[in-house]
Amino acid sequence: MDLQEMIFNRAQAAKTASRSMNLISTAVKNSALAAMAHALEQRSSAIIEANAADLEKARQKGVRRSYLDRLMLDEGRIAGMADGLRQAAALPDPVGEGDYSTVRPNGLEIRRVRVPLGVVGMIYEARPNVTADAIGLCLKASNAVLLRGGSEAIHSNKAIAGIMAEAAYRAGIPEGAVQLIDSTDREAVSIMLKLKGYLDVIIPRGGAGLIRTVVENSIVPVIETGTGVCHTFVDADADLSMALQIAVNAKTSRPSVCNAMETLLVHEAAAAEFLPMLAKAMKEKECELRGCPRCCELVAGMAEADEEDWGTEYGDLILSVKVVADVEEAIAHINRYNTGHSEAIITKSLDNARLFQRCVDAAAVYVNASTRFSDGCEFGFGAEIGISTQKLHARGPMGLTALTSTKYLVMGDGQIR
Amino acid sequence: MDLQEMIFNRAQAAKTASRSMNLISTAVKNSALAAMAHALEQRSSAIIEANAADLEKARQKGVRRSYLDRLMLDEGRIAGMADGLRQAAALPDPVGEGDYSTVRPNGLEIRRVRVPLGVVGMIYEARPNVTADAIGLCLKASNAVLLRGGSEAIHSNKAIAGIMAEAAYRAGIPEGAVQLIDSTDREAVSIMLKLKGYLDVIIPRGGAGLIRTVVENSIVPVIETGTGVCHTFVDADADLSMALQIAVNAKTSRPSVCNAMETLLVHEAAAAEFLPMLAKAMKEKECELRGCPRCCELVAGMAEADEEDWGTEYGDLILSVKVVADVEEAIAHINRYNTGHSEAIITKSLDNARLFQRCVDAAAVYVNASTRFSDGCEFGFGAEIGISTQKLHARGPMGLTALTSTKYLVMGDGQIR
Repeated sequence: MDLQEMIFNRAQAAKTASRSMNLISTAVKNSALAAMAHALEQRSSAIIEANAADLEKARQKGVRRSYLDRLMLDEGRIAGMADGLRQAAALPDPVGEGDYSTVRPNGLEIRRVRVPLGVVGMIYEARPNVTADAIGLCLKASNAVLLRGGSEAIHSNKAIAGIMAEAAYRAGIPEGAVQLIDSTDREAVSIMLKLKGYLDVIIPRGGAGLIRTVVENSIVPVIETGTGVCHTFVDADADLSMALQIAVNAKTSRPSVCNAMETLLVHEAAAAEFLPMLAKAMKEKECELRGCPRCCELVAGMAEADEEDWGTEYGDLILSVKVVADVEEAIAHINRYNTGHSEAIITKSLDNARLFQRCVDAAAVYVNASTRFSDGCEFGFGAEIGISTQKLHARGPMGLTALTSTKYLVMGDGQIR
Repeated sequence: MDLQEMIFNRAQAAKTASRSMNLISTAVKNSALAAMAHALEQRSSAIIEANAADLEKARQKGVRRSYLDRLMLDEGRIAGMADGLRQAAALPDPVGEGDYSTVRPNGLEIRRVRVPLGVVGMIYEARPNVTADAIGLCLKASNAVLLRGGSEAIHSNKAIAGIMAEAAYRAGIPEGAVQLIDSTDREAVSIMLKLKGYLDVIIPRGGAGLIRTVVENSIVPVIETGTGVCHTFVDADADLSMALQIAVNAKTSRPSVCNAMETLLVHEAAAAEFLPMLAKAMKEKECELRGCPRCCELVAGMAEADEEDWGTEYGDLILSVKVVADVEEAIAHINRYNTGHSEAIITKSLDNARLFQRCVDAAAVYVNASTRFSDGCEFGFGAEIGISTQKLHARGPMGLTALTSTKYLVMGDGQIR
């Protein structure tokens, strides 16, 4: 059987399963999530063994230590995946929720209710915990799922998906609802992107390159996620010690994630006082600064930023810094270079806070807080399948609701038009 | 200036205008809609003159009468476009509406509010009234718009868009918010589909070919609209006179539209009584029937349907008819051949009604009513930009809300993570 046929068959099996998922009760779904959590813990040694094969291969390739760390699974991390599933089980079921209901003058009763998307395609890189999270959240929203993880984690992903699929089936989830493409052939991604009629959505999670490939080549609708060139603007009258705390947190608490700050903008009236404070604090955190010419005048020895810096997601301990004339220039800079993820203003001015929140084009716009809060759990959704940086369907942290669609149910007694 | 540069410039102008649209009040938008309505009526002779050029060219090509009728504009139809704009002005403004609000344990206040999409790209065919509708609805939701109408209506569209853009600008809408691509070069569509970063969404309206081209080639997110292979299932215990009335209405009241029925399914227990009634009524309406072998046995002289019929949107006075064993077979047939638009069951059985509504995968699922009601006005939205047949973002008739996105506004007082 060739690759195309294999993928086609799995997509077909997922589609068939998704038809029956409509009839599965919340109770069955929740017990399936609990059963999957239990199975992961019970069979952790098999997962760790599979993971060891992935780690060994990665080591042979000579990858970076941070990369190995992301790939590695141990008892603690497996327990973490199981906990995630139990938390998803505890969340309210979005399927069936109504958000519009009316009776028309002709007597037609119209309701709009949440329904599963159908089959969710996930294409992701490296971290094997995404496998468990995606399966759990997709099933909780009554979707079937077709997964394509990174080739680096193929053994781990096969072990995790296999254990979870079996546990789900035994708990009453239709056979075939959990599918993994267990080929490392890159062609598999191209084939998935053409599965219109089988997949209802594709969610890519990974680096900018993966996301671009998916967005540019998929004929299945895509929810774009992830890349974050996030800004923090320190206004003229900002509380500078608050601004410093937030800046340090936004940049250095976890530099590799998408909600970390990449560029700090500072009002020219605050620059002379704030930038030396910033430079000192960032030096302590071993964070490199790259500044506009004015910044370089104010802080001796700061490297000069070039045009490319303003649009770069460093994902590392590097921060670009720019002095701006006012909140309008800050907004214009952000709207030119950002990726629509998360942006913050530090200010005491109500007018500037409101203008910034209204005019900055991003999923989340903060006043006096760190952009690092853009996260499904921090926003109160209990779980997250990714952070959408597009404007259609879902924007910002995506909880279970983002994995559903709607349907109009119309009840009549013979109405014609 | 070449085509690519022209389109790029217009998209850029729309993008720039969209940045200011965030700050326009509902009152200004509503008075702009009223001004545009007034301008269309005041300058109707210029529009009719431009339309005459389109009609003349179409006549030379020898197009069908029904096609000419769709293209034609007169005082009455221009008044109809103006009325549509006034109705849009009267609708509630979706921008700024909130649908989620929480205070987190750390004191962060998080609100989710509706915001404009930004720049909406519309690619459509033939009917020039779509130009007026699209401009009105997009502006009402604070979007800029880039339009690409059919080449057959190019003079009409230029006249309408020109008059409306001028009236909008005079009423306080940012310059450049209304853009029309006034080239008939087919390449213009391909260029639009690559305008990622300028357009936030593309909505195609037209035939299946246009929609396929857009879905398969766009790297801008698309809302798929329109094609409708709609079914009506007549259950074993249906009120057959109600079923007949609904079937005749769904098929013949306006056969060319997407919510018209294309296939009727009938339970085998009702077939012998119902099919002769149906054949008689449809003959009176000059509607051709194409049936499965069992239908052809029950109704003398019925043409036999082939496999292709089941997936065809005739858009004409043709109906395919099939006998099924039960509601499950009806659901399976529909989920195999439908386009996710509108489906109906005629039944007295509560169980079957519930099963049908739950399992049929479509934007609107009716019990005892005609599929012809799938329409923004009939659903109570007051206006419609199209009918989405996809599951992301918007499904079914799309009102103003479908032309918005959301944004998280987060208010803090120094929170870090």
